Formats: sequence, structure tokens, C-alpha cells
Amino acid sequence: MPKILVIGAGAIGSFYGGKLAQSGETVAVLSKHQEFFIQSPLGDFTFTPSPYNFEPDFVLICTKVYPDIDWKTLLSPHIFKHTAIVLLQNGIDIEPPIQTLFPHNEFISGLAFVCVHRETPTHIIHEEHGRLVFGNYPSGISPKVKQLSEDFEKAGISCKATENVKEARWRKLVWNAAFNPLSVLCGGASTTEMLNHPPTVLTTRHIMEEVVMLAKADGANLPLDCIDKNIEDTAKMPPYKTSMLLDFEHKRPMEVEAILGNALRVGSRLTVKTPYLETLYATLSLLNKKRQQA
Amino acid sequence: MPKILVIGAGAIGSFYGGKLAQSGETVAVLSKHQEFFIQSPLGDFTFTPSPYNFEPDFVLICTKVYPDIDWKTLLSPHIFKHTAIVLLQNGIDIEPPIQTLFPHNEFISGLAFVCVHRETPTHIIHEEHGRLVFGNYPSGISPKVKQLSEDFEKAGISCKATENVKEARWRKLVWNAAFNPLSVLCGGASTTEMLNHPPTVLTTRHIMEEVVMLAKADGANLPLDCIDKNIEDTAKMPPYKTSMLLDFEHKRPMEVEAILGNALRVGSRLTVKTPYLETLYATLSLLNKKRQQA
Repeated sequence: MPKILVIGAGAIGSFYGGKLAQSGETVAVLSKHQEFFIQSPLGDFTFTPSPYNFEPDFVLICTKVYPDIDWKTLLSPHIFKHTAIVLLQNGIDIEPPIQTLFPHNEFISGLAFVCVHRETPTHIIHEEHGRLVFGNYPSGISPKVKQLSEDFEKAGISCKATENVKEARWRKLVWNAAFNPLSVLCGGASTTEMLNHPPTVLTTRHIMEEVVMLAKADGANLPLDCIDKNIEDTAKMPPYKTSMLLDFEHKRPMEVEAILGNALRVGSRLTVKTPYLETLYATLSLLNKKRQQA
Repeated sequence: MPKILVIGAGAIGSFYGGKLAQSGETVAVLSKHQEFFIQSPLGDFTFTPSPYNFEPDFVLICTKVYPDIDWKTLLSPHIFKHTAIVLLQNGIDIEPPIQTLFPHNEFISGLAFVCVHRETPTHIIHEEHGRLVFGNYPSGISPKVKQLSEDFEKAGISCKATENVKEARWRKLVWNAAFNPLSVLCGGASTTEMLNHPPTVLTTRHIMEEVVMLAKADGANLPLDCIDKNIEDTAKMPPYKTSMLLDFEHKRPMEVEAILGNALRVGSRLTVKTPYLETLYATLSLLNKKRQQA
């Protein structure tokens, strides 16, 4: 049985770490808290992490992605020769800064499609969904990816191993780059409020088209109907507050660089024009900066 | 001597009406207030409007431009055969809805380049500048335009009559369409904060380029250096809160339609793509709507 360390005891880390522990895995968490209460349609449970007295087989990185995180200091004490590094985070092109630091370790990138938030630091509310996608970065499915996927499946979490995790990341960014920023800029709007206002729907589509174009230039051909599908699926959801909006409301920094800044830099490298993403970035990056200075 | 009625006793109406009254003109104001105190580098003064017992030669419309204003009900009682209608308001393409209602009246459109705000409903603070531009809409300089300009000059206000007021309006929109929306979306940013954040400066330029392109498609060839000049002149100003930001902070509706919505509609009519303006509109129009519902 693999031994797992979760770094980042937020909603994502506590929920997925908790599910693995519940199914019998050894899961430690870097946190001052000893216990988490997880409220979930899959069944409520208490997650008591294992003592951290092992060299992890998997380090599951579930922090937010901020440019000022010193990954070397944060991760180095926990990465051994046999440790696979697993990112379970939002954003695009977030892997290189970490992979560069540990070039000899197995490197896995993952995405969570889930509605989950922290009510308090130890009270996690899982609302719905939960599907995971994992793959080696930039591509491939190693035995460890397969093992991780099977472990999650055993824990009751739908999990898919993918040969092309970069494409999966672009596909998730289609939703994230549109709804996350707009929800903040529209004055704290739920997905339902945005989808009930035609000008916002139009711009949502245009932002998504820009991400699809960027993905294509980066070698990821997303299916043509993914924009319609994203909008239709979101319209079926109950009113939902995006993670960026929750961060904004709780005065936490927003993942502006991981979601928008990195996308813009890809566009700049591949000479793809991105006026929509650029406008979102220009406003949210200053908003973030003002918030942090305040 | 012409008799003047000011409609809209905000900062603009009280300041310019007050200056005309100070120089000896007969100026009435549609307002429940009988007295305004104007604090100004040109000299502080108290403006006591004339009793409104005349048929105005000029009706100076200084209200904000909101789509739900019933211009017919508001204006009809004050417009006589000889009355010239004068707009002193922000935005683009704001003339047709009013001009259509009074097709036989002389119609003058004007712009104020001024930093002035209302501290209280009767306490107006004029910070700096004050230049006016007037012309017949859509073009021309009639004797009444000349008379009005001379009256303002006599009152100590620099005033220019222009053959092409549409071009003047586009030129002012270059500044307004960029700094007004961004100041709100960036979390209440002053001009200085925006100009100290490179991503915001870049997007400011791109928004301005879009307005210059729109203006060109609409027949107004703005000078090529107007973008640099707008940015340089703004950088020389002390930190300034835009009028849209002041409206937002005071929970008043913002002039989103006059400044952005109308520009987008011109772009749509002339098939000019406007992704920057569209993104600003998508966010601010929903923000405005949510504010008004709250």
C-alpha cells in the first residue's frame, strides 16, 4: 500500500485525502489540524490523518497556485528518490516551475472536477461531482499513474488516467478562464446570474473561444462542441460561486497568474492574440495587488 | 441676454450654471435646492439660481445618461419653439434619442473636460480644468453655438465651438471608455494606481486603440498620437477617481450604456470587432444590474 502525503489542507486536499484514508490508505497531511469533518452526498465522515512518519510514495500537492510560493523550501523535505509528485491544482502551464526543481522524480499532473469548499478550516462541504483526471506531465500513463487512479476508484472517486494531461488542463481552463474571473468582476455573480445576463453569456463564449484557440496553438485540439457543452452543463447546475469568487470574498489571493497570466504567456509565446483574457488579467491582477497591499 | 435652464443639478450642472450666473446670466436650475456652494481654484462662490419664470433660450441638460430616463416627460415642459437644446453629458451616440423627440429645435452637443465632483448635493468641489467644446449635432456651428461659447468665455470658462462635435465626442471617449470602466473593475483604482501597473497600462492602450478604430469607421479620424497624449496627460495628474468610480462608490448607477453599450452598438453596426470594450461591458452591465436590484 502506498503512503501518501497531502500538502495543502484546503477543500481539495482534505476531501480527496480523506476519501483515500477512508478506503484504508495511509494519508498524512501537512497541517496544524488533526481532524477534518467532511460533509458529502457520498456520506459524511471524519478524516483523521495518519501520523507523518514515513517517506511518501506520493506527495499530493493541493495548494492554491500563487507566484510567490517558494516550492523548493515547501517541497524539498518531503521528496525522496521514489516519491511521485502529484499536482492536483488549477491553472495552465503550472507544472514546469515544480518539475524543474525535481527533474529525477516521477511527475504527475491532475485535475479535479468537483464542487467542494471549506466552511471552516476543518469543516469541508462537498457539494457535488468529484471526477479526477491524472496523467504524467507532459504526457503518458506510468504504472504509478495507474496505481493512483485505481486507489481513487477504490475510494469511490471516479478517476481517469489520460495520455494527454496537457489537453485535459486546457479543457478545464475553458471553464475556469471564463467563469472564475467574470464571477468576481461582475460584482460577486453566481453562475446562474452570469448565464441570465446575455452580454455576459456572449463574452463567456468569446473567452472560451480564445482558450480553445490557445489550446490548439499549443497542440491540444479540443472538441468543437466543448463550449456549448460547458455552458449547457453550467446552466443545469444550481447557482454556484466559483473558487475565485470564494477566494475574493474571503480576502485570499486569487489564482490570477495560474489561470490567466500563464495563458497569456502561452499566447505571447505562440503569437496568439488574446484580448479577452488580457482584459480579465489587467483588471484582476491589479485587484489582487491592491487586496494584498491593503 | 439669453435665459438658461439647467436640468441636472449635479457637479457639472451646478458648476457651469453657477459660472454663467456669476457672470450675470439668468440661470434657473431644476432642483429642490435653492443654493449651491462652489469651491474652485477659480474662486469660491455661492450660486443662487434665478427663479424659473421664463421660457428658456437654452436648456442645458447635465444629467447622467441612463437608458431608463424618460426624456420626453422630463424635457417637454421646458422646450419652446425658440429653445436650443444643449447636451453637456458623457458618452457616445447619446444625441439621437433626444433629438428625435424635438426635431424642430436647435440641437447642440457639448463636452466638459473638467475634474469636478459633488461633496454633498449643494457643495460642489471643482478640482481643475474646465474647458468646454460645443457644436451642432451632428455638425456645424450656428449663431447660437457661437453665442453660448462667448457666454462661457465671458464667464471665465475656456470654450471652443467645433464644426465636428461627433469627432470631439469620440476623442473624449478614448479616455472615458478606458479609465472609467477599469477604475471600477480594478477594485476602485485611481488613475495613478492603474498607470503604475503595467498590465493595466497595456490594456488601457488596447481599449483606446479600439475606440480610435471605431471612431475611424464612424468617420472621425482622431490624431494618431491621441493615445500617448491621453496616457501622458493622465500620468501628470494627481491620483484621480473617475466619475464612474464615484458613481459606483456612491451606489449610483454607472453610465455603462452611454459609454460602452452605445460604442458596442456602433461597432456592431459598422462591423468593427471590439473584444476589449465587450469584456468591459459584459462585466459592468451585470454589476450595474445587480447593484440596481440590491
